[in-house]
Amino acid sequence: MGAHFQSWMVDLKAEFGHEDITSRVAGLVADSGVTTGAVTVGMAGSTGAITTIEYESGALQDLRRAIDGIAPANDDYAHNARWGDGNGFSHVRSALLRTSLSIPVVEGKLYLGTWQQVVVINFDNRPRKREVGAVVFGE
Amino acid sequence: MGAHFQSWMVDLKAEFGHEDITSRVAGLVADSGVTTGAVTVGMAGSTGAITTIEYESGALQDLRRAIDGIAPANDDYAHNARWGDGNGFSHVRSALLRTSLSIPVVEGKLYLGTWQQVVVINFDNRPRKREVGAVVFGE
Amino acid sequence: MGAHFQSWMVDLKAEFGHEDITSRVAGLVADSGVTTGAVTVGMAGSTGAITTIEYESGALQDLRRAIDGIAPANDDYAHNARWGDGNGFSHVRSALLRTSLSIPVVEGKLYLGTWQQVVVINFDNRPRKREVGAVVFGE
Repeated sequence: MGAHFQSWMVDLKAEFGHEDITSRVAGLVADSGVTTGAVTVGMAGSTGAITTIEYESGALQDLRRAIDGIAPANDDYAHNARWGDGNGFSHVRSALLRTSLSIPVVEGKLYLGTWQQVVVINFDNRPRKREVGAVVFGE
Repeated sequence: MGAHFQSWMVDLKAEFGHEDITSRVAGLVADSGVTTGAVTVGMAGSTGAITTIEYESGALQDLRRAIDGIAPANDDYAHNARWGDGNGFSHVRSALLRTSLSIPVVEGKLYLGTWQQVVVINFDNRPRKREVGAVVFGE
Repeated sequence: MGAHFQSWMVDLKAEFGHEDITSRVAGLVADSGVTTGAVTVGMAGSTGAITTIEYESGALQDLRRAIDGIAPANDDYAHNARWGDGNGFSHVRSALLRTSLSIPVVEGKLYLGTWQQVVVINFDNRPRKREVGAVVFGE
Protein backbone atom coordinates (compact mmCIF):
# COMPACT_ATOMS: atom_id res chain seq x y z
CA MET A 1 0.00 0.00 0.00
CA GLY A 2 1.34 3.37 -0.95
CA ALA A 3 0.46 6.85 -2.11
CA HIS A 4 2.05 8.56 -5.10
CA PHE A 5 1.70 12.18 -6.21
CA GLN A 6 2.39 13.91 -9.48
CA SER A 7 1.49 17.36 -10.80
CA TRP A 8 1.40 19.01 -14.19
CA MET A 9 1.22 22.56 -15.45
CA VAL A 10 -1.54 23.04 -18.01
CA ASP A 11 -1.92 26.13 -20.23
CA LEU A 12 -5.58 26.96 -20.68
CA LYS A 13 -7.43 29.63 -22.65
CA ALA A 14 -9.84 32.07 -21.02
CA GLU A 15 -13.50 31.32 -20.13
CA PHE A 16 -13.66 27.69 -21.23
CA GLY A 17 -10.12 26.59 -21.97
CA HIS A 18 -9.97 22.80 -21.62
CA GLU A 19 -7.50 19.96 -21.78
CA ASP A 20 -7.78 16.20 -21.65
CA ILE A 21 -5.50 14.97 -18.84
CA THR A 22 -6.58 11.32 -18.90
CA SER A 23 -3.31 9.95 -20.25
CA ARG A 24 -1.27 11.84 -17.64
CA VAL A 25 -3.39 10.51 -14.78
CA ALA A 26 -3.31 7.01 -16.30
CA GLY A 27 0.47 7.29 -16.57
CA LEU A 28 0.78 8.13 -12.87
CA VAL A 29 -1.37 5.11 -12.02
CA ALA A 30 0.70 2.82 -14.24
CA ASP A 31 4.00 4.08 -12.78
CA SER A 32 2.75 3.71 -9.20
CA GLY A 33 2.21 -0.02 -9.42
CA VAL A 34 -1.14 0.34 -7.66
CA THR A 35 -3.56 -2.31 -8.93
CA THR A 36 -6.58 -1.74 -6.64
CA GLY A 37 -7.26 1.69 -5.18
CA ALA A 38 -8.33 5.13 -6.28
CA VAL A 39 -6.88 8.30 -7.70
CA THR A 40 -7.87 11.79 -6.51
CA VAL A 41 -7.30 14.53 -9.06
CA GLY A 42 -7.41 18.18 -8.00
CA MET A 43 -6.79 21.68 -9.26
CA ALA A 44 -5.32 24.40 -7.08
CA GLY A 45 -7.64 27.35 -7.73
CA SER A 46 -11.19 28.60 -7.41
CA THR A 47 -12.01 29.56 -11.02
CA GLY A 48 -11.70 26.22 -12.81
CA ALA A 49 -13.07 22.70 -12.70
CA ILE A 50 -12.25 19.06 -13.22
CA THR A 51 -14.88 16.67 -14.52
CA THR A 52 -15.29 13.82 -17.00
CA ILE A 53 -16.83 14.09 -20.46
CA GLU A 54 -16.47 12.57 -23.91
CA TYR A 55 -13.65 14.79 -25.11
CA GLU A 56 -14.96 15.83 -28.53
CA SER A 57 -15.74 19.36 -29.71
CA GLY A 58 -19.51 18.89 -29.87
CA ALA A 59 -20.00 17.70 -26.29
CA LEU A 60 -17.59 20.38 -25.03
CA GLN A 61 -19.48 23.10 -26.90
CA ASP A 62 -22.77 21.80 -25.46
CA LEU A 63 -21.37 21.76 -21.92
CA ARG A 64 -20.13 25.31 -22.35
CA ARG A 65 -23.56 26.48 -23.47
CA ALA A 66 -25.30 24.84 -20.49
CA ILE A 67 -22.84 26.46 -18.06
CA ASP A 68 -23.24 29.84 -19.79
CA GLY A 69 -26.96 29.51 -19.09
CA ILE A 70 -26.42 28.83 -15.38
CA ALA A 71 -23.89 31.64 -14.78
CA PRO A 72 -23.64 34.00 -17.79
CA ALA A 73 -20.29 35.76 -18.21
CA ASN A 74 -21.87 39.13 -18.98
CA ASP A 75 -24.22 39.27 -15.97
CA ASP A 76 -23.74 41.38 -12.82
CA TYR A 77 -21.96 39.68 -9.94
CA ALA A 78 -21.51 40.76 -6.33
CA HIS A 79 -17.95 39.42 -6.48
CA ASN A 80 -17.15 41.82 -9.33
CA ALA A 81 -18.76 44.78 -7.54
CA ARG A 82 -16.55 44.08 -4.55
CA TRP A 83 -13.25 43.11 -6.15
CA GLY A 84 -13.43 44.52 -9.65
CA ASP A 85 -11.72 41.53 -11.26
CA GLY A 86 -14.65 40.61 -13.50
CA ASN A 87 -14.49 36.87 -12.84
CA GLY A 88 -17.54 36.47 -10.60
CA PHE A 89 -19.06 34.03 -13.09
CA SER A 90 -15.88 31.93 -12.94
CA HIS A 91 -16.19 31.45 -9.18
CA VAL A 92 -19.82 30.37 -9.44
CA ARG A 93 -19.08 27.89 -12.21
CA SER A 94 -16.16 26.44 -10.31
CA ALA A 95 -18.16 25.96 -7.11
CA LEU A 96 -20.95 24.23 -9.05
CA LEU A 97 -18.73 21.92 -11.10
CA ARG A 98 -15.99 21.39 -8.49
CA THR A 99 -12.24 21.30 -8.76
CA SER A 100 -11.50 17.69 -7.84
CA LEU A 101 -12.73 14.16 -8.39
CA SER A 102 -11.83 10.61 -7.47
CA ILE A 103 -11.85 7.59 -9.75
CA PRO A 104 -11.50 3.92 -8.78
CA VAL A 105 -8.34 2.15 -9.93
CA VAL A 106 -9.04 -1.45 -10.98
CA GLU A 107 -6.47 -3.91 -12.32
CA GLY A 108 -4.02 -1.02 -12.54
CA LYS A 109 -6.29 1.06 -14.75
CA LEU A 110 -8.62 4.05 -14.39
CA TYR A 111 -12.19 2.85 -14.03
CA LEU A 112 -13.69 4.92 -16.87
CA GLY A 113 -15.69 4.25 -20.00
CA THR A 114 -14.08 4.17 -23.44
CA TRP A 115 -15.51 7.57 -24.37
CA GLN A 116 -14.97 9.15 -20.97
CA GLN A 117 -12.03 11.48 -20.38
CA VAL A 118 -10.79 13.45 -17.38
CA VAL A 119 -10.88 17.11 -18.33
CA VAL A 120 -9.59 20.26 -16.65
CA ILE A 121 -11.42 23.48 -17.51
CA ASN A 122 -10.42 27.10 -16.91
CA PHE A 123 -13.43 29.34 -16.31
CA ASP A 124 -11.40 32.45 -15.55
CA ASN A 125 -11.76 35.56 -17.71
CA ARG A 126 -8.11 35.36 -18.71
CA PRO A 127 -5.80 32.55 -19.84
CA ARG A 128 -4.36 30.64 -16.92
CA LYS A 129 -1.47 28.29 -16.38
CA ARG A 130 -3.07 25.82 -14.02
CA GLU A 131 -1.38 23.37 -11.69
CA VAL A 132 -3.22 20.07 -11.63
CA GLY A 133 -2.18 17.27 -9.30
CA ALA A 134 -3.18 13.69 -8.61
CA VAL A 135 -2.56 11.22 -5.81
CA VAL A 136 -3.03 7.50 -6.41
CA PHE A 137 -3.28 5.18 -3.43
CA GLY A 138 -4.03 1.52 -2.89
CA GLU A 139 -2.15 -1.72 -3.18
CA MET B 1 -4.70 -1.28 5.42
CA GLY B 2 -6.12 -2.67 2.23
CA ALA B 3 -8.19 -1.90 -0.84
CA HIS B 4 -11.14 -3.93 -1.99
CA PHE B 5 -13.07 -3.66 -5.27
CA GLN B 6 -16.48 -4.87 -6.31
CA SER B 7 -18.65 -4.12 -9.35
CA TRP B 8 -22.29 -4.59 -10.23
CA MET B 9 -24.32 -4.53 -13.41
CA VAL B 10 -27.35 -2.28 -13.13
CA ASP B 11 -30.24 -2.20 -15.64
CA LEU B 12 -31.49 1.35 -16.07
CA LYS B 13 -34.28 2.90 -18.11
CA ALA B 14 -33.67 5.67 -20.67
CA GLU B 15 -33.29 9.39 -19.84
CA PHE B 16 -33.57 9.21 -16.05
CA GLY B 17 -33.44 5.55 -15.09
CA HIS B 18 -32.23 5.34 -11.49
CA GLU B 19 -31.32 2.77 -8.87
CA ASP B 20 -30.42 2.93 -5.21
CA ILE B 21 -27.06 1.16 -4.78
CA THR B 22 -26.49 2.08 -1.13
CA SER B 23 -26.92 -1.44 0.24
CA ARG B 24 -24.49 -2.87 -2.32
CA VAL B 25 -21.81 -0.32 -1.46
CA ALA B 26 -22.48 -0.80 2.26
CA GLY B 27 -22.15 -4.56 1.77
CA LEU B 28 -18.73 -4.16 0.15
CA VAL B 29 -17.63 -1.98 3.06
CA ALA B 30 -18.88 -4.52 5.62
CA ASP B 31 -17.21 -7.44 3.84
CA SER B 32 -13.91 -5.57 3.54
CA GLY B 33 -13.38 -5.23 7.27
CA VAL B 34 -12.35 -1.59 6.79
CA THR B 35 -13.41 0.46 9.83
CA THR B 36 -11.84 3.86 9.02
CA GLY B 37 -11.31 4.93 5.42
CA ALA B 38 -13.31 5.91 2.38
CA VAL B 39 -15.13 4.34 -0.53
CA THR B 40 -14.92 5.66 -4.10
CA VAL B 41 -17.89 4.72 -6.28
CA GLY B 42 -17.68 5.18 -10.05
CA MET B 43 -19.57 4.46 -13.23
CA ALA B 44 -17.82 3.53 -16.46
CA GLY B 45 -19.49 5.77 -19.02
CA SER B 46 -20.10 9.37 -20.04
CA THR B 47 -23.91 9.55 -20.14
CA GLY B 48 -24.82 8.79 -16.54
CA ALA B 49 -24.19 10.03 -13.03
CA ILE B 50 -23.72 8.98 -9.44
CA THR B 51 -24.91 11.24 -6.63
CA THR B 52 -26.74 11.07 -3.30
CA ILE B 53 -30.38 11.96 -2.72
CA GLU B 54 -33.29 10.90 -0.55
CA TYR B 55 -34.44 7.99 -2.68
CA GLU B 56 -38.17 8.68 -2.86
CA SER B 57 -40.22 9.36 -5.99
CA GLY B 58 -40.94 13.02 -5.21
CA ALA B 59 -37.31 14.11 -4.77
CA LEU B 60 -36.28 12.08 -7.83
CA GLN B 61 -39.01 13.69 -9.95
CA ASP B 62 -37.92 17.14 -8.72
CA LEU B 63 -34.26 16.42 -9.54
CA ARG B 64 -35.25 15.25 -13.00
CA ARG B 65 -37.17 18.47 -13.66
CA ALA B 66 -34.25 20.66 -12.55
CA ILE B 67 -31.85 18.75 -14.82
CA ASP B 68 -34.33 18.95 -17.71
CA GLY B 69 -34.23 22.72 -17.26
CA ILE B 70 -30.42 22.85 -17.43
CA ALA B 71 -30.04 20.59 -20.48
CA PRO B 72 -33.39 19.87 -22.17
CA ALA B 73 -33.61 16.56 -24.06
CA ASN B 74 -35.36 18.09 -27.07
CA ASP B 75 -32.91 20.97 -27.64
CA ASP B 76 -30.28 21.17 -30.39
CA TYR B 77 -26.82 19.87 -29.48
CA ALA B 78 -23.52 20.15 -31.35
CA HIS B 79 -22.75 16.57 -30.28
CA ASN B 80 -25.89 15.36 -32.07
CA ALA B 81 -25.10 17.38 -35.20
CA ARG B 82 -21.69 15.74 -35.32
CA TRP B 83 -22.43 12.15 -34.30
CA GLY B 84 -26.15 11.73 -34.92
CA ASP B 85 -26.73 9.65 -31.79
CA GLY B 86 -29.18 12.08 -30.19
CA ASN B 87 -27.71 11.91 -26.71
CA GLY B 88 -26.00 15.30 -26.54
CA PHE B 89 -28.10 16.26 -23.54
CA SER B 90 -26.95 13.07 -21.76
CA HIS B 91 -23.28 14.05 -22.06
CA VAL B 92 -23.91 17.54 -20.68
CA ARG B 93 -25.90 16.21 -17.73
CA SER B 94 -23.25 13.63 -16.94
CA ALA B 95 -20.41 16.17 -16.99
CA LEU B 96 -22.39 18.49 -14.68
CA LEU B 97 -23.46 15.84 -12.18
CA ARG B 98 -20.37 13.62 -12.41
CA THR B 99 -19.95 9.89 -12.56
CA SER B 100 -18.14 9.20 -9.30
CA LEU B 101 -18.10 10.17 -5.63
CA SER B 102 -16.27 9.32 -2.44
CA ILE B 103 -17.79 8.81 0.98
CA PRO B 104 -16.00 8.51 4.32
CA VAL B 105 -16.17 5.12 6.06
CA VAL B 106 -16.50 5.48 9.83
CA GLU B 107 -16.81 2.62 12.32
CA GLY B 108 -17.23 0.28 9.36
CA LYS B 109 -20.20 2.19 7.97
CA LEU B 110 -20.91 4.65 5.16
CA TYR B 111 -20.91 8.19 6.53
CA LEU B 112 -24.37 9.19 5.21
CA GLY B 113 -27.57 10.55 6.70
CA THR B 114 -30.57 8.32 7.36
CA TRP B 115 -32.46 9.70 4.37
CA GLN B 116 -29.47 9.85 2.06
CA GLN B 117 -28.89 7.17 -0.56
CA VAL B 118 -26.23 6.56 -3.21
CA VAL B 119 -27.97 6.61 -6.57
CA VAL B 120 -26.84 5.77 -10.08
CA ILE B 121 -28.69 7.53 -12.90
CA ASN B 122 -28.75 6.79 -16.62
CA PHE B 123 -29.18 9.95 -18.71
CA ASP B 124 -28.77 8.21 -22.07
CA ASN B 125 -31.60 8.29 -24.61
CA ARG B 126 -31.87 4.49 -24.47
CA PRO B 127 -31.96 1.92 -21.68
CA ARG B 128 -28.47 0.98 -20.55
CA LYS B 129 -26.95 -1.86 -18.59
CA ARG B 130 -24.40 0.08 -16.56
CA GLU B 131 -21.34 -1.24 -14.80
CA VAL B 132 -20.87 0.45 -11.45
CA GLY B 133 -17.83 -0.23 -9.28
CA ALA B 134 -16.56 0.74 -5.86
CA VAL B 135 -13.22 0.56 -4.10
CA VAL B 136 -13.06 0.76 -0.30
CA PHE B 137 -9.71 1.47 1.36
CA GLY B 138 -8.52 2.17 4.85
CA GLU B 139 -7.77 0.15 7.93
CA MET C 1 -0.03 4.23 5.91
CA GLY C 2 -3.06 5.03 8.02
CA ALA C 3 -6.54 6.51 8.06
CA HIS C 4 -7.71 9.13 10.54
CA PHE C 5 -11.24 10.42 11.09
CA GLN C 6 -12.57 13.52 12.77
CA SER C 7 -16.02 15.13 12.83
CA TRP C 8 -17.39 18.52 13.76
CA MET C 9 -20.81 19.92 14.52
CA VAL C 10 -21.56 23.03 12.48
CA ASP C 11 -24.49 25.40 13.17
CA LEU C 12 -25.91 26.68 9.90
CA LYS C 13 -28.69 29.10 9.04
CA ALA C 14 -31.64 28.15 6.83
CA GLU C 15 -31.62 28.06 3.00
CA PHE C 16 -27.98 29.03 2.40
CA GLY C 17 -26.23 28.93 5.76
CA HIS C 18 -22.51 28.41 5.11
CA GLU C 19 -19.28 27.90 6.99
CA ASP C 20 -15.63 27.70 6.00
CA ILE C 21 -14.25 24.42 7.37
CA THR C 22 -10.85 24.57 5.66
CA SER C 23 -8.83 25.11 8.83
CA ARG C 24 -10.55 22.21 10.59
CA VAL C 25 -9.83 19.84 7.71
CA ALA C 26 -6.26 21.16 7.45
CA GLY C 27 -5.85 20.60 11.20
CA LEU C 28 -6.90 16.98 10.87
CA VAL C 29 -4.40 16.50 8.06
CA ALA C 30 -1.59 18.11 10.09
CA ASP C 31 -2.39 16.03 13.19
CA SER C 32 -2.51 12.79 11.17
CA GLY C 33 1.09 12.98 10.02
CA VAL C 34 0.00 12.02 6.48
CA THR C 35 2.29 13.70 3.94
CA THR C 36 1.04 12.15 0.67
CA GLY C 37 -2.55 11.00 0.33
CA ALA C 38 -6.04 12.43 0.18
CA VAL C 39 -8.81 13.61 2.46
CA THR C 40 -12.48 12.81 1.91
CA VAL C 41 -14.89 15.27 3.51
CA GLY C 42 -18.57 14.40 3.85
CA MET C 43 -21.80 15.62 5.36
CA ALA C 44 -24.38 13.28 6.82
CA GLY C 45 -27.64 14.53 5.29
CA SER C 46 -29.50 15.06 2.04
CA THR C 47 -30.31 18.79 2.18
CA GLY C 48 -26.84 20.34 2.24
CA ALA C 49 -23.64 20.40 0.24
CA ILE C 50 -19.87 20.57 0.47
CA THR C 51 -17.88 22.34 -2.23
CA THR C 52 -14.96 24.74 -2.62
CA ILE C 53 -15.24 28.45 -3.32
CA GLU C 54 -13.41 31.68 -2.54
CA TYR C 55 -15.02 32.33 0.84
CA GLU C 56 -16.01 35.97 0.50
CA SER C 57 -19.51 37.42 0.65
CA GLY C 58 -19.68 38.40 -3.03
CA ALA C 59 -18.87 34.98 -4.47
CA LEU C 60 -21.17 33.31 -1.93
CA GLN C 61 -24.03 35.65 -2.84
CA ASP C 62 -23.43 34.94 -6.54
CA LEU C 63 -23.43 31.18 -5.96
CA ARG C 64 -26.67 31.45 -4.02
CA ARG C 65 -28.33 33.34 -6.86
CA ALA C 66 -27.25 30.77 -9.45
CA ILE C 67 -28.60 27.92 -7.31
CA ASP C 68 -31.84 29.81 -6.69
CA GLY C 69 -32.22 29.95 -10.48
CA ILE C 70 -31.76 26.19 -10.86
CA ALA C 71 -34.12 25.15 -8.05
CA PRO C 72 -36.16 28.11 -6.73
CA ALA C 73 -37.28 27.84 -3.10
CA ASN C 74 -40.82 29.07 -3.81
CA ASP C 75 -41.57 26.65 -6.68
CA ASP C 76 -43.81 23.57 -6.49
CA TYR C 77 -42.04 20.30 -5.70
CA ALA C 78 -43.31 16.71 -5.83
CA HIS C 79 -41.37 16.03 -2.63
CA ASN C 80 -43.36 18.72 -0.83
CA ALA C 81 -46.68 17.44 -2.18
CA ARG C 82 -45.85 14.01 -0.83
CA TRP C 83 -44.21 14.80 2.50
CA GLY C 84 -45.36 18.32 3.33
CA ASP C 85 -42.00 19.40 4.75
CA GLY C 86 -41.42 22.19 2.23
CA ASN C 87 -37.78 21.38 1.55
CA GLY C 88 -38.08 19.85 -1.92
CA PHE C 89 -35.77 22.53 -3.32
CA SER C 90 -33.16 21.60 -0.68
CA HIS C 91 -33.03 17.99 -1.85
CA VAL C 92 -32.58 18.99 -5.48
CA ARG C 93 -29.80 21.44 -4.66
CA SER C 94 -28.01 18.89 -2.51
CA ALA C 95 -28.13 16.19 -5.21
CA LEU C 96 -26.77 18.64 -7.79
CA LEU C 97 -23.96 20.07 -5.66
CA ARG C 98 -23.16 16.89 -3.70
CA THR C 99 -22.41 16.33 -0.05
CA SER C 100 -18.81 15.14 -0.20
CA LEU C 101 -15.51 15.80 -1.92
CA SER C 102 -11.93 14.57 -1.91
CA ILE C 103 -8.79 16.67 -2.01
CA PRO C 104 -5.21 15.53 -2.56
CA VAL C 105 -2.83 15.89 0.40
CA VAL C 106 0.65 16.92 -0.72
CA GLU C 107 3.62 17.58 1.57
CA GLY C 108 1.22 17.37 4.51
CA LYS C 109 -1.06 20.09 3.17
CA LEU C 110 -4.41 20.36 1.41
CA TYR C 111 -3.88 20.75 -2.32
CA LEU C 112 -5.95 23.93 -2.76
CA GLY C 113 -5.39 27.40 -4.14
CA THR C 114 -4.78 30.39 -1.88
CA TRP C 115 -8.29 31.74 -2.45
CA GLN C 116 -10.01 28.37 -2.35
CA GLN C 117 -11.84 27.24 0.78
CA VAL C 118 -13.79 24.10 1.70
CA VAL C 119 -17.32 25.19 2.51
CA VAL C 120 -20.33 23.39 3.98
CA ILE C 121 -23.74 24.76 3.00
CA ASN C 122 -27.16 24.09 4.51
CA PHE C 123 -29.93 24.24 1.89
CA ASP C 124 -32.70 23.16 4.27
CA ASN C 125 -35.64 25.48 4.94
CA ARG C 126 -34.74 25.63 8.63
CA PRO C 127 -31.50 26.12 10.56
CA ARG C 128 -29.60 22.87 10.98
CA LYS C 129 -26.83 21.63 13.20
CA ARG C 130 -24.86 19.59 10.71
CA GLU C 131 -22.34 16.85 11.38
CA VAL C 132 -19.43 17.08 8.99
CA GLY C 133 -16.67 14.47 8.96
CA ALA C 134 -13.39 13.89 7.20
CA VAL C 135 -11.06 10.93 6.74
CA VAL C 136 -7.44 11.48 5.74
CA PHE C 137 -5.42 8.54 4.43
CA GLY C 138 -2.02 8.06 2.94
CA GLU C 139 1.51 7.79 4.20
